[in-house]
Amino acid sequence: MSFPADDLVPTNPLADPLLADLYEFTMAYAWWRNGKAERAAVADLHFRRNPFGGEFTVFAGLAEAVRFLSGYRFSAAHIERLRTLLPAATDPRFFDWLGSCSLEQVRVRALREGRLSFPRVPLLIVEGPVAQVQLLETALLTLVNYPTLVATAAARLRLAAGPDRRLLEFGLRRAPGVDGGISASRYAYIGGFDATSDVKAADLFPALPVAGTHAHAFVQSYLNLGEADLAGFVAVDGHPFDLKEAALSYRAQLDALHTHDGELAAFLAYAAAYPMAFLALVDTYDTMKSGLPNFLAVALALCQAGYTPLGIRLDSGDLAYLSRQARAAFEEASARFSVPFDHLSIVASNDLDEATLLALNVQGHQIDTFGIGTRLVMPGEALGAVYKLMEVDGHPRIKVSGDSAKISIPGRKNAYRLYVSGGGGAPPTPVVDLMTLADEEPPEPGRPVLCRHPFDETKRVLVTPSVVEDLYDVVWDGAAQREAIRPLEQVRADVLEQLAHFRQDHLRAVNATPYKVSVSARLYDFVHELLASEVPIAEIR
Amino acid sequence: MSFPADDLVPTNPLADPLLADLYEFTMAYAWWRNGKAERAAVADLHFRRNPFGGEFTVFAGLAEAVRFLSGYRFSAAHIERLRTLLPAATDPRFFDWLGSCSLEQVRVRALREGRLSFPRVPLLIVEGPVAQVQLLETALLTLVNYPTLVATAAARLRLAAGPDRRLLEFGLRRAPGVDGGISASRYAYIGGFDATSDVKAADLFPALPVAGTHAHAFVQSYLNLGEADLAGFVAVDGHPFDLKEAALSYRAQLDALHTHDGELAAFLAYAAAYPMAFLALVDTYDTMKSGLPNFLAVALALCQAGYTPLGIRLDSGDLAYLSRQARAAFEEASARFSVPFDHLSIVASNDLDEATLLALNVQGHQIDTFGIGTRLVMPGEALGAVYKLMEVDGHPRIKVSGDSAKISIPGRKNAYRLYVSGGGGAPPTPVVDLMTLADEEPPEPGRPVLCRHPFDETKRVLVTPSVVEDLYDVVWDGAAQREAIRPLEQVRADVLEQLAHFRQDHLRAVNATPYKVSVSARLYDFVHELLASEVPIAEIR
Repeated sequence: MSFPADDLVPTNPLADPLLADLYEFTMAYAWWRNGKAERAAVADLHFRRNPFGGEFTVFAGLAEAVRFLSGYRFSAAHIERLRTLLPAATDPRFFDWLGSCSLEQVRVRALREGRLSFPRVPLLIVEGPVAQVQLLETALLTLVNYPTLVATAAARLRLAAGPDRRLLEFGLRRAPGVDGGISASRYAYIGGFDATSDVKAADLFPALPVAGTHAHAFVQSYLNLGEADLAGFVAVDGHPFDLKEAALSYRAQLDALHTHDGELAAFLAYAAAYPMAFLALVDTYDTMKSGLPNFLAVALALCQAGYTPLGIRLDSGDLAYLSRQARAAFEEASARFSVPFDHLSIVASNDLDEATLLALNVQGHQIDTFGIGTRLVMPGEALGAVYKLMEVDGHPRIKVSGDSAKISIPGRKNAYRLYVSGGGGAPPTPVVDLMTLADEEPPEPGRPVLCRHPFDETKRVLVTPSVVEDLYDVVWDGAAQREAIRPLEQVRADVLEQLAHFRQDHLRAVNATPYKVSVSARLYDFVHELLASEVPIAEIR
Repeated sequence: MSFPADDLVPTNPLADPLLADLYEFTMAYAWWRNGKAERAAVADLHFRRNPFGGEFTVFAGLAEAVRFLSGYRFSAAHIERLRTLLPAATDPRFFDWLGSCSLEQVRVRALREGRLSFPRVPLLIVEGPVAQVQLLETALLTLVNYPTLVATAAARLRLAAGPDRRLLEFGLRRAPGVDGGISASRYAYIGGFDATSDVKAADLFPALPVAGTHAHAFVQSYLNLGEADLAGFVAVDGHPFDLKEAALSYRAQLDALHTHDGELAAFLAYAAAYPMAFLALVDTYDTMKSGLPNFLAVALALCQAGYTPLGIRLDSGDLAYLSRQARAAFEEASARFSVPFDHLSIVASNDLDEATLLALNVQGHQIDTFGIGTRLVMPGEALGAVYKLMEVDGHPRIKVSGDSAKISIPGRKNAYRLYVSGGGGAPPTPVVDLMTLADEEPPEPGRPVLCRHPFDETKRVLVTPSVVEDLYDVVWDGAAQREAIRPLEQVRADVLEQLAHFRQDHLRAVNATPYKVSVSARLYDFVHELLASEVPIAEIR
């Protein structure tokens, strides 16, 4: 399999080697100045806490990170710009070194995009000359933090909505900037959404389905019935059909003469434009008194002309109540007019989030599609992944902290996901992620392996896995590796498959059970010997 | 004044006419299909609630919005892509119309970028053919929402820090994507920050100062003193100078023999690379027992070589306590070694936000520079600006809502900021923003004008302004108008000037006094007549 060429270019051309904090360059210079730029280093990109108070995270952003690495070289213009930004004391020969900098000696291992991931287990492991490894820090974090956050938010919404509802991403207008919006659409899809309203995202990622019909503005723009000019409208059979007359007749039969005429005109105009895709926003004036009857009048007229309307969108009010009322009205119309309105779609939007979805489920509703925007693209918290030096010239490095949750697991590592037999033909269940030193033998199916909590000596568990999954692929080895860039549909299917097969108590919206993240016996000893030697003993005098 | 050509191209090339929700295109098609695409329309872009529980908002994103308009045309590739994304029933002649679509008949008025702004007062007013006005909705919202949110967060942080502290933006790694990071840097500067760590932002916006020194990784990468290779280091006078020997001697004099040798090596290496810009991160192992004494040893050695060190950065622990301890140590060293350490800088970072700054102020600290990242670039809430149709063919339009805060002010409007004399030579103070119908005479200095709350009939105030500021400039009139794109420094100065001259109770961090937003007597009557005619009377049976 070869890549399409454009798979190896960053989606956003602004993602170039200058996408970095200034200190990456001043550090690179200081290493270079002291003859240390080429020291062998290993850095891990990991996070410390699952977002949204949950116990899982969906890793995303890898394909874009690999595209970034593929395009990583300093142009003459970059070098000129850096000359003006770095302190005047910078030795000019450093810029020659930068200009010759390639990622040929860099190797990156990574979790597959879309895998569920957990605190402390690296998402990416970057190895190579220390200055180059460091220069990649900011960009890799930027390319992973927000995508992973959005994919996780989307997966949580998918769990809240259940597997059968449709989820539409409507967030572009509230998104944090142009590619914030574009990447929110892409990573919401990965996390389990069905479609996006974002045309630019669909332009860039043809796998993304797009959705959308009309806004309040369309309804407001029609002042009266005279403005619905339906000239040329034909029924399915190709014959001219007076859609307006039919709708007016149905409106009379529905005893709904006081609906808003401008709204009816707008619905007619929209239906005439898209007779096979008529989905009406019904809350511009009053959902029950105007929007819903006007929709029914036009939908019945469309049926008479041989078309099948799609449904309505609710954007305000009590969505549970209104959806039940609408469903009842559809069923009544089905029975009274012998039309297939039982399966009309009810789309709901209006600042929806996970908590609202869960509350609507409890209350009972008839919504089959949720449109979710702001709360998905601006999730209210950050992931906070970090990129830490783990080894230099073969020596493990540790960053000490008063808070053991902030202590990273040092050294060059491997990691495995251990599964136990599901029983009764069920697929194996993941039970623990195990980190080992890179030179340890991997665990084997059927052989017990001791898994230790990295900091709590009392927490030890002997696991006999039925399946052992090596968590990392080499995604960059001086050049992009094809495993890195998986098609969006494949990543999405992987996410949904994991959501189905992880123990549901790990995925619960509230008070979920933490998934076990552990270290091998050797790595445990290694961590604690290092802590003892590197952490100064505090003194109280 | 003419524009540099690149001022008229979007910073992010992904900001093209496909940056839109699908429904903008389906609505445009439905209008076109019904012969209504060219109807004259007016839309307002406004927000309903100030962010962060505050009572003011800093408008930002205008320059980028005008760049977007300047580049707005459908390429053949865009059209081809839209053919595949719109429903199959779309009349192919619509795509010819789209291809010929220009913004020649569109006119946009806007608040100047950087102006303080308030709920309901439009930030942008877009006039033109309805389909074109609607097609701009999503992109304009995307280009305004996040920039305005970040500029407002930055201005609040500037107020919390006070005018004299330095504020550095460190958020790129936690930012919502590539241009989320870039625009956060730009709009944080506009809102009153002093510099950013983001090299790409400084590359794109040369006015942005950049800052940064080194991370923990640099310290961790040095294992022992032997690794500090300072060959070729010279004092200010050009003579060779043994920086390491001098630092070891000072370390002994400071009675700090148990500091971490690797950390000392790293500080020496960094100081040798940038002797005129030595600022050390001191918390890798232990701030008080290792980082601070190691810093002092190297800083004293640098002084001996004729250089002036810059200071330290604290990234963990109790920043108030540590900064006071560090300041005391600097003063002691000043006195003991006769060095100018009184003015060393103390930079603090570590998940800082507005509440932490305010708490540090109360506790008392010696920090002179704050580095702020995550909480600025991922502010935890969205602005939620909306874009609403206000007039069609001269008819005012209103979107009704059960919540009067969500009812927008209909019609084509002007808006003015009224100032009253400050007294005692003080500059005039803004007291109210007044919206009027577009055909009303503007208020005049010295003449009383009745300002009414748009929905509360009891709230009326007679204002005799000393200064009347017309809030809107024409920023687009078939082409970009030069007033729209103000240099960043000018916008930033404008923000800081307003923060100084608005009544401070409007700007207070907590429980601020709302700034008055009102309508003229004519606009009040107009709104309420329209509400009476458009809102159905609810019935309870």
